[in-house]
Amino acid sequence: MRAYVKTAAGPGEQLLKVPLPEPPDAGEVVVKVKATSICGTDLHIHLWDGWSAIRVKPPRIMGHEFTGEVISIGPGVSAVKVGSCVTGESHWTCGYCLQCRLGQQHVCAQTKILGVDVDGCFAEFVKVPQGSLWVNLPDVPTKLACIQDPLGNAVHAVMSGPVAGCRVAVLGCGPIGIFAVAVARSAGASHVFATDLSSYRLKLASELGADETGHPQSDDIERLSQAQTNGIGFDAVFEMSGAPAAIRQAMRICRRGGRVVLMGIPSSRVDLDIAEDMIFKGLEIQCVVGRRLYQTWQTMHELLASGRLNVLPTITHELPFSELPEGMELMRRGECGKVVFHAD
Amino acid sequence: MRAYVKTAAGPGEQLLKVPLPEPPDAGEVVVKVKATSICGTDLHIHLWDGWSAIRVKPPRIMGHEFTGEVISIGPGVSAVKVGSCVTGESHWTCGYCLQCRLGQQHVCAQTKILGVDVDGCFAEFVKVPQGSLWVNLPDVPTKLACIQDPLGNAVHAVMSGPVAGCRVAVLGCGPIGIFAVAVARSAGASHVFATDLSSYRLKLASELGADETGHPQSDDIERLSQAQTNGIGFDAVFEMSGAPAAIRQAMRICRRGGRVVLMGIPSSRVDLDIAEDMIFKGLEIQCVVGRRLYQTWQTMHELLASGRLNVLPTITHELPFSELPEGMELMRRGECGKVVFHAD
Amino acid sequence: MRAYVKTAAGPGEQLLKVPLPEPPDAGEVVVKVKATSICGTDLHIHLWDGWSAIRVKPPRIMGHEFTGEVISIGPGVSAVKVGSCVTGESHWTCGYCLQCRLGQQHVCAQTKILGVDVDGCFAEFVKVPQGSLWVNLPDVPTKLACIQDPLGNAVHAVMSGPVAGCRVAVLGCGPIGIFAVAVARSAGASHVFATDLSSYRLKLASELGADETGHPQSDDIERLSQAQTNGIGFDAVFEMSGAPAAIRQAMRICRRGGRVVLMGIPSSRVDLDIAEDMIFKGLEIQCVVGRRLYQTWQTMHELLASGRLNVLPTITHELPFSELPEGMELMRRGECGKVVFHAD
Amino acid sequence: MRAYVKTAAGPGEQLLKVPLPEPPDAGEVVVKVKATSICGTDLHIHLWDGWSAIRVKPPRIMGHEFTGEVISIGPGVSAVKVGSCVTGESHWTCGYCLQCRLGQQHVCAQTKILGVDVDGCFAEFVKVPQGSLWVNLPDVPTKLACIQDPLGNAVHAVMSGPVAGCRVAVLGCGPIGIFAVAVARSAGASHVFATDLSSYRLKLASELGADETGHPQSDDIERLSQAQTNGIGFDAVFEMSGAPAAIRQAMRICRRGGRVVLMGIPSSRVDLDIAEDMIFKGLEIQCVVGRRLYQTWQTMHELLASGRLNVLPTITHELPFSELPEGMELMRRGECGKVVFHAD
Repeated sequence: MRAYVKTAAGPGEQLLKVPLPEPPDAGEVVVKVKATSICGTDLHIHLWDGWSAIRVKPPRIMGHEFTGEVISIGPGVSAVKVGSCVTGESHWTCGYCLQCRLGQQHVCAQTKILGVDVDGCFAEFVKVPQGSLWVNLPDVPTKLACIQDPLGNAVHAVMSGPVAGCRVAVLGCGPIGIFAVAVARSAGASHVFATDLSSYRLKLASELGADETGHPQSDDIERLSQAQTNGIGFDAVFEMSGAPAAIRQAMRICRRGGRVVLMGIPSSRVDLDIAEDMIFKGLEIQCVVGRRLYQTWQTMHELLASGRLNVLPTITHELPFSELPEGMELMRRGECGKVVFHAD
Repeated sequence: MRAYVKTAAGPGEQLLKVPLPEPPDAGEVVVKVKATSICGTDLHIHLWDGWSAIRVKPPRIMGHEFTGEVISIGPGVSAVKVGSCVTGESHWTCGYCLQCRLGQQHVCAQTKILGVDVDGCFAEFVKVPQGSLWVNLPDVPTKLACIQDPLGNAVHAVMSGPVAGCRVAVLGCGPIGIFAVAVARSAGASHVFATDLSSYRLKLASELGADETGHPQSDDIERLSQAQTNGIGFDAVFEMSGAPAAIRQAMRICRRGGRVVLMGIPSSRVDLDIAEDMIFKGLEIQCVVGRRLYQTWQTMHELLASGRLNVLPTITHELPFSELPEGMELMRRGECGKVVFHAD
Repeated sequence: MRAYVKTAAGPGEQLLKVPLPEPPDAGEVVVKVKATSICGTDLHIHLWDGWSAIRVKPPRIMGHEFTGEVISIGPGVSAVKVGSCVTGESHWTCGYCLQCRLGQQHVCAQTKILGVDVDGCFAEFVKVPQGSLWVNLPDVPTKLACIQDPLGNAVHAVMSGPVAGCRVAVLGCGPIGIFAVAVARSAGASHVFATDLSSYRLKLASELGADETGHPQSDDIERLSQAQTNGIGFDAVFEMSGAPAAIRQAMRICRRGGRVVLMGIPSSRVDLDIAEDMIFKGLEIQCVVGRRLYQTWQTMHELLASGRLNVLPTITHELPFSELPEGMELMRRGECGKVVFHAD
Repeated sequence: MRAYVKTAAGPGEQLLKVPLPEPPDAGEVVVKVKATSICGTDLHIHLWDGWSAIRVKPPRIMGHEFTGEVISIGPGVSAVKVGSCVTGESHWTCGYCLQCRLGQQHVCAQTKILGVDVDGCFAEFVKVPQGSLWVNLPDVPTKLACIQDPLGNAVHAVMSGPVAGCRVAVLGCGPIGIFAVAVARSAGASHVFATDLSSYRLKLASELGADETGHPQSDDIERLSQAQTNGIGFDAVFEMSGAPAAIRQAMRICRRGGRVVLMGIPSSRVDLDIAEDMIFKGLEIQCVVGRRLYQTWQTMHELLASGRLNVLPTITHELPFSELPEGMELMRRGECGKVVFHAD
């Protein structure tokens, strides 16, 4: 089969002919990939940043976002059938550590990531454990089915506390930030404010339901926040950028007794005024990673299948699998929302 | 001023000239009523049912749903100003019992109800404690501002647990049931099923966002429920009818691990299969009364003011204050949603 | 190996020589049973009541409460090692239904019960799936390790809401009720009231930490409840008897805004005053079955291993495995707490 | 009456004869102070630090921790009676802002603090609003009744999430930290680790129930934490010191998916490794200030009155009111737990 493989330490990847996955063992499933998409992590591996150099051991088939059809199942598989239309959860958890036993699989310390620690889905077929698959309802279009792994990050972040009737802010409108805007709207947020340095992304945020947008360099975000909340601050702030300044801002524009969700990953240490901006305000800070397995998927999938959550405009490009490098380049230039590749 | 007064034990009420309320004492506020509406409780008092005969001590000005403008305030009032546009919470709580101290004022045992235990708002002016008033944002039309007390019941019921991405059923589509349909939709429910014996009301439920409706006599509600939930049952069931059969049905159509909200008041004892229908299914049963003071109001008001929650179609009649008896008659015949009376 | 087998439909069981379990398949584990204990369910099967006659298909090795040592593991087993000291969770869940995916495995509709639907642990060896095992910390004595399955019911019930600083009542002091008394005390309940028809059990409840006890026939339970709570009612009531009168009482002695946990299984329908006793009081009713998998086990095991929770007095009899019929007879006569059998 | 008054900007205070409080107005209450105690804030005002210089406007009677007897009440007072034995909550909230209406009075932006913004309780009598008083049950000794305001901080922090069966750490064993140790034990924590730079305080922590203690300079706190938690980390960490190093440590010794409570106030900005220590671990960070009004008081009072929570050893000194300056000096030297002053 064809697959994009990181063949050696360093930037880039190669489209190669590689052997089909071995037949599925107990609990394993082979899926024919119908669509795949690119995550920021894939771009990091493509560019071979510091994190990739430490974590990824070539040769490795890349990619972790996909949807497809089950074509064979190993012994003892009951979660899916041959023919099931499935989407993959990229984080494979151990199932038996304390966190897994407590229903906190999303922070399992033994997590393996598809396309990072094991061979991924930038390929015609992929072999995964049954427990990592979500069976889609028939109503979800392939391209939406494909992007549920990253959409799930936004659902997890937004749904970790009250949303209906709340005024919320989303700082950082990369794909997950834009998703957060849409999710907040579908769950009844009464006002959504979105910020980003890119006008392209702010426009996308408006299209997905942001009531107001702000540009951290040309606007006074704190003043705008006050104006939109009668001087009280937002009930919830979703920090999706990872920028230290935005993290500090998140604390400041959140109202006393509100919640701040930290999901954007800062690349350096961040200094905070913990006394004034956090403790005296009685904030609740939720540090959110991955998706709740599988509460997040259930909520997300219901919202998608019912049409309550419309994230179609976030998919700005659809390309054939053979043009994955072109998509990677779009990602690098930031001139896109999600880029989805269909099997060709 | 003019006021509708229950002058003596027995059916009916009289439109009388009565003295204006006394000037407000410490913490009290006088409101000029701009609109008022009828609740089922008012109809009970009008008809003088068993409960009324025990609870209401004539002479008593009736009515508890209203919106209006503050025209005078007593010493120490800080919650509102002269000119504030307010809506009244009908339940006046003691503030200092265990429940009030724990944030459960809605079950304060010393609660006094406007128009039941003290003189009400079917009048040109009404005097109330400042703590029972909600200050409206400017964006809410008078007739919507008026019906927040009963709308709040639905918001309380629906928001007492997860809604976004959930499949829910509403049993009983009187005004509060219809409100519950709308609230569930605005908070992201992925599917809403509504039942009632009246086709008029089912049509209203559809208009407010019900995805499917069922008639308990001509439809097999349990079979319909299975069909709408892949045989699993609803994530949440809101019982708004008080009918014993519906209460039993609520338990049966709820999925294992789901939640059932009981809000409709049965007029007799109800026998249940607690083993099969409740314990083995691990249900969570929430018995809900009144509104959370004032979390419910905050959520509701944000949803209304932002336009996320549209309940305008529930207001089927608007009449001048002088025609309140006609509205009472509409209520008696069940040929209406909410009936709102404007000051004349 | 020796095993107690229900050989045919009808009362009783036989101690037989049966083949050892087959070698473990993928994900399976064989455990050498070090201790086992009798549950009320075992007694029902022993006596062959209506439920047993429908559910149990002889021949069947009985028993579901056990602790032991892992002696062999199948392929892919990572949760335990040979030599691990484990206790079995009796409910084997499917892992992939909606409830399992949402972290509500305790209400999985495909649950298989050890000793009921599959061969059980009243035997020298038992084969189970790795996911049903809990690895014990070294500090827990064998007899305590053995009774965690039923103790977990009490932990689940008590810990489903606030306990610290709460005044609570436990209605029904069979083993799980007595456990609930101890668990409530260890979690900081400020007052524990226990009721039962048996003086033997009330004495045991006092020993485990009940502050007061009441006898439903000779005492006025409602009056006693008022007296112990300044007339307010209990913050939480744990109904462990299944008696219809006690279920109604649970609603009445719970305070407005309090929670009632229903765990005792009534054998007939129960009629309730839902209006007065439940809705107007704003009760939260939790219907609780089994154990949260595995949050309950983690909490329980920590409490046991740390010595914070002392339930040793509940184990009133320890017998060799060969005397299991004598233990069954003790259970039948109700002259015991938990009866534990050690391998001989 | 006699009162300790900050007469002018600068260190120190004077014991003066001052007029009795004015007769109570609507909703007000005059209390005869039976006991009072010193908080760290009082010491700051005594020493006149930067915060005091900005916030406190002399002349001001100091002090905010007290218990006493109600001797007169203003019109409309229903929460207490003449003769009620009460303790004061030091934070007076507005009652009508968004936070107050949502049950988050502890972060009301209009809060006035007794002895800081209004005349305090280092006096023979003090006048307060009825809503700031807690009526004590008869079983609580005066000296314990007196220290509930600071004890409540610990109860609020510890009870903001699960405790029973959890392994917890308390960083910083000033009075509130030591209280946290005791509260965690009374609520069923399975293991309590306490750290402080003072051996005196660590000894006190052990006396109150800490299972292990560590000294941040002579011990390797992270290694000790690993050893006490099987390498997993603590379920909950209560940061009570405000030291930047301890705040960072709190994040590191907390397990993946655990909770960190920040209550100690750092005097400078703190830099954190948000990516590694917080987000990837999926931590929940609760910034906690004051007490939940009045859920915290209810829980605390029940624990105290029932004897489940024993904090007597934290009261290391009892002095007559006239020796308050000696107590202030003990506080300054850190050679004490709580110092309580009895009326003389």
